[in-house]
Amino acid sequence: MSDALQQSIYETLSQLVLIDPHTHINPHSPASKTLADILGYHYYTELAHSAGMPRAHIEEPGIDPKEKVRRLAEGLGHIDNTAQLAWLLELSRELFGFEAERVDSSNWESMYDAALAKMGQPDWEDQVLLKTGLEAVFLTNDFDDPLDGFDTRRYVPCLRTDELVFHFVKASVRERLQKCSNTQVHSIDDFRRALKQRFTHFKSRGVRACAISLPPFFAPVEVSDAQAESALGRILSQSENVDADSRSTLGYWVFWELARNCVEAKLPFDLMIGVNRAVYPSGVFQGQDLYDSRVSLIQYRELFNAFPQVTFPISVLASVTNQELVSYAWIFPNVVTNGHWWYSNTPSFVQRDLHARLEAIPRNKQIGYYSDMYKLEFALPKFNMFKRCLARVLAQHFVIDCRWSETRAIALGQQILRGNVETIFGYQ
Amino acid sequence: MSDALQQSIYETLSQLVLIDPHTHINPHSPASKTLADILGYHYYTELAHSAGMPRAHIEEPGIDPKEKVRRLAEGLGHIDNTAQLAWLLELSRELFGFEAERVDSSNWESMYDAALAKMGQPDWEDQVLLKTGLEAVFLTNDFDDPLDGFDTRRYVPCLRTDELVFHFVKASVRERLQKCSNTQVHSIDDFRRALKQRFTHFKSRGVRACAISLPPFFAPVEVSDAQAESALGRILSQSENVDADSRSTLGYWVFWELARNCVEAKLPFDLMIGVNRAVYPSGVFQGQDLYDSRVSLIQYRELFNAFPQVTFPISVLASVTNQELVSYAWIFPNVVTNGHWWYSNTPSFVQRDLHARLEAIPRNKQIGYYSDMYKLEFALPKFNMFKRCLARVLAQHFVIDCRWSETRAIALGQQILRGNVETIFGYQ
Amino acid sequence: MSDALQQSIYETLSQLVLIDPHTHINPHSPASKTLADILGYHYYTELAHSAGMPRAHIEEPGIDPKEKVRRLAEGLGHIDNTAQLAWLLELSRELFGFEAERVDSSNWESMYDAALAKMGQPDWEDQVLLKTGLEAVFLTNDFDDPLDGFDTRRYVPCLRTDELVFHFVKASVRERLQKCSNTQVHSIDDFRRALKQRFTHFKSRGVRACAISLPPFFAPVEVSDAQAESALGRILSQSENVDADSRSTLGYWVFWELARNCVEAKLPFDLMIGVNRAVYPSGVFQGQDLYDSRVSLIQYRELFNAFPQVTFPISVLASVTNQELVSYAWIFPNVVTNGHWWYSNTPSFVQRDLHARLEAIPRNKQIGYYSDMYKLEFALPKFNMFKRCLARVLAQHFVIDCRWSETRAIALGQQILRGNVETIFGYQ
Repeated sequence: MSDALQQSIYETLSQLVLIDPHTHINPHSPASKTLADILGYHYYTELAHSAGMPRAHIEEPGIDPKEKVRRLAEGLGHIDNTAQLAWLLELSRELFGFEAERVDSSNWESMYDAALAKMGQPDWEDQVLLKTGLEAVFLTNDFDDPLDGFDTRRYVPCLRTDELVFHFVKASVRERLQKCSNTQVHSIDDFRRALKQRFTHFKSRGVRACAISLPPFFAPVEVSDAQAESALGRILSQSENVDADSRSTLGYWVFWELARNCVEAKLPFDLMIGVNRAVYPSGVFQGQDLYDSRVSLIQYRELFNAFPQVTFPISVLASVTNQELVSYAWIFPNVVTNGHWWYSNTPSFVQRDLHARLEAIPRNKQIGYYSDMYKLEFALPKFNMFKRCLARVLAQHFVIDCRWSETRAIALGQQILRGNVETIFGYQ
Repeated sequence: MSDALQQSIYETLSQLVLIDPHTHINPHSPASKTLADILGYHYYTELAHSAGMPRAHIEEPGIDPKEKVRRLAEGLGHIDNTAQLAWLLELSRELFGFEAERVDSSNWESMYDAALAKMGQPDWEDQVLLKTGLEAVFLTNDFDDPLDGFDTRRYVPCLRTDELVFHFVKASVRERLQKCSNTQVHSIDDFRRALKQRFTHFKSRGVRACAISLPPFFAPVEVSDAQAESALGRILSQSENVDADSRSTLGYWVFWELARNCVEAKLPFDLMIGVNRAVYPSGVFQGQDLYDSRVSLIQYRELFNAFPQVTFPISVLASVTNQELVSYAWIFPNVVTNGHWWYSNTPSFVQRDLHARLEAIPRNKQIGYYSDMYKLEFALPKFNMFKRCLARVLAQHFVIDCRWSETRAIALGQQILRGNVETIFGYQ
Repeated sequence: MSDALQQSIYETLSQLVLIDPHTHINPHSPASKTLADILGYHYYTELAHSAGMPRAHIEEPGIDPKEKVRRLAEGLGHIDNTAQLAWLLELSRELFGFEAERVDSSNWESMYDAALAKMGQPDWEDQVLLKTGLEAVFLTNDFDDPLDGFDTRRYVPCLRTDELVFHFVKASVRERLQKCSNTQVHSIDDFRRALKQRFTHFKSRGVRACAISLPPFFAPVEVSDAQAESALGRILSQSENVDADSRSTLGYWVFWELARNCVEAKLPFDLMIGVNRAVYPSGVFQGQDLYDSRVSLIQYRELFNAFPQVTFPISVLASVTNQELVSYAWIFPNVVTNGHWWYSNTPSFVQRDLHARLEAIPRNKQIGYYSDMYKLEFALPKFNMFKRCLARVLAQHFVIDCRWSETRAIALGQQILRGNVETIFGYQ
């Protein structure tokens, strides 16, 4: 009974039209042009590399898309057990009508051609959104993005702030901020004005969240303007040669200032906690980051207490942090759970983490899922993977163990898949 | 077959009469007077607050019980997915005969009245114990509790020692110790005598355990009397202004001294490891504590080696510590596992942690469960939740996977539910 | 259907002939002589001790094998719920034809005699290997092992290096190295020559891996020869009285030098990460080690980057580190997963950790299992336990959830059980 029940719940959930609350879509080129855009996703290049393909083979400058796909296809046999390859097969079947059990040297070209035929259609973007059941897609915008030339109702701006907090020691970042905000940053007051200008700009274009990814050692505290002023002075004169203390002091100040702007702009502040960048610097593009799972939400204790008006949708990189996330969301009104991120976005971790959330956190404080995609085609298989996990928890825990009706379980699923995205990000 | 088997095991386990080895029951008022005593449990107030209800609304001074229930009932819709709310519905059904799928503005008053009718009966306490199948309930007694005026066979004293280890810098705590022990504490010898007097007093009233909850950063070591003497000197003169080192030095000394008294008094020493107090100080009463899951039992290595004669029933706050607990209980004869505490007391964590324990720790070293309740009505749904998890592990792992007979699996369940409580705490 | 499917997959997997890639077998005495060799395994002595049997009772000098078994049998009732005891019953049934539901004072002697009758047969070693389906067994050889007098095709040498990295402060270790390598170690160059000589010796005898177990606090970095030289000087003059910095400096240098030798000798370097030795020094032989689960693979970041040519098969002691292992193996081409070690080698952890690996790591980078056994009889029940877990993941995740054919799922199982052992260790 459980299998049939799970399938029935899954099918009902599949009829929902969704909003994807975190992606890396380029709104000027949201869908893929060739299968190389799909197979170029770091999940395939990094896994193929990990399984033995040299980086130089994958990233040879100037190779054309078809050759790139041919090369990568040779490495997919070693990763055909992964959830990531299952995404590829599912999207090929559902979107290109290309059905296969595996991709290898015998069939990559047919797959390439099938994809090309679809991607070349003028309304391909709309077809993908319709087939996927996607109404809107949140973006990840650089702080100096003009946010021009696209429909901000469909492609919803989000202000990404990693560079401001972690890379203000780089002259290039400072110059970009000065240029876009039309503000020379010589003092903390200048910096504050420049940041405020950015929030005003983003707000005028319908921004729905401020977002940042954070390393495991980040433990922010409030820093006085005076302390920040002297750190800024050293950074302006020494740039990347500055001492680590000045970096972190100014970084904390910027982080706090972002939170202050979130209060005024009434924006949630997405925290993506736990990533160490460039742990494997010889890895493929975007396939170099890892983590230290020894991180705790206690590091954000001062922040959560200082900003009760700001909602913090939180993603954690490692499943071992999931229970802390559950407990902090259970206690702090301003902490909500946000999807299943990156290394925790495979079925066994999603299933386990989701179960723990659904049985202990208020239902209005859980954002079920986001795709994190770079190209529209990935929302379909990623959300389907999540819906299967969700349907299983709803069937087993709520209907069978807790004796809920199927209708009631589905309503809970709908709330975390869609309803909470609307209420938490104010997208109606 | 597995579902029917699990149900059959559950039903047999449900016929056991139990001893609850850790609660916060007030033996002078063990059962609830109104539904406000039930809904006032921090699980409901903190979850309602987390889901959006202001603390001031919940904790307004002087509101009467019925108004408090009316207010809280408004917030229960957001938490109807939680295991905690399932406890409420189960106890209402089983104890008040009030059956409902949810509690909201339409039915809270009927529920209130149904509860009141039952709670007003003169033998309500006995009814609850009988219906729950509870024979005895361990208490959590302040060190200066006179332990008078109740049946210590039914309500079993346990000496709670957090204040002695962590709050001896407070003049009020010192005064209470001096008064109850009739000993002026000017020196370490005085302190030792006062502690000893307390153990003697508790022992004369049938105490069955010494207990303490510990923050994740606590890493006790043996401290000499001389070191403790000088720390005590500073504390007596500076009280809460004293330096952190003096606090922790004296705290370690007291902790070690408690263990020494446990040797003499032949008492188990319950360690509840991992809680950070007041992480969210604006939270509701008892809804402010959280944790840092980066804690290790290696912090207790010196203690476990120093006191081979003392049994340490250990509770861990986070499920990520469960495997360490399993391994330490597997190696150290004096380490035993104790229930599923607080943030790890929801079905998915209980299930997983219990399975890992049952497959690797000697069966005579596992205390299955305690309710941690403040009012008697909660033992029923909490123990039932545990018994469902237990029945599932017994059915799936032992009967199906290991091919045990159902009878044999049930005997294992009975031992961890009841038998080990008797042998470990010497309650026969 | 899932149960039948799982059983069918298990049976097919059981027909494979295996190579066990990590054991502690003594090739001069690989099989047991009496049941005391089986019950003397630390899993039984430490669990019996943990459950209440005094160490002195278990380890009394001079007791004969039969008396030892009689004593231990008395304590097995308390541990009959453990996976470890299930190994005993399964190997007794399969290898001795002795079938019992439990071992106690009523039947230990029959079991002893049944074992003795088998073990006394001249071809017992071959019988065990045949019945188990084992073709070859990797050893754990001291650095000064002459590797003489056994078939190195069946018993494959592996160079264990803990003593060189952690115990070079002991005069006895230095003397052994000097003697076996015929090299006086007065300088870093001498030390380098001595290590090189050892690799040459091992290589000439068919060594297949270098291996080491590492404490959680080990965080190796590259150390210059000059730094190592001065640390070595202090160690040669002060031996075990030397400061901790000199120890760790030289240890890091040795560790790096071992990795350099692995490059030249084309050997994988097995890292077994996370054990603290002698946490419970009063425990039984080999039953004293535990761990601090706060360890991260980020500690090996510099190593993994410095030696891209070396494959690192990695075992982690605690399941909380499994997700890091999955992620590091997913990104680093030279990181592969290696079995389920010690405290994580019980069914619930194996199942969970295996599932996470199979859904996210390239299939050619996973070494399914090793037995870690001291006596040949243990490979059978340990590998069977693993195969049951594997069959469950293959049935549930791959066949049912991912709709693979049973044949395809079995091929994945065969690859991680046998194929990858051949390719990763170069054993064909």
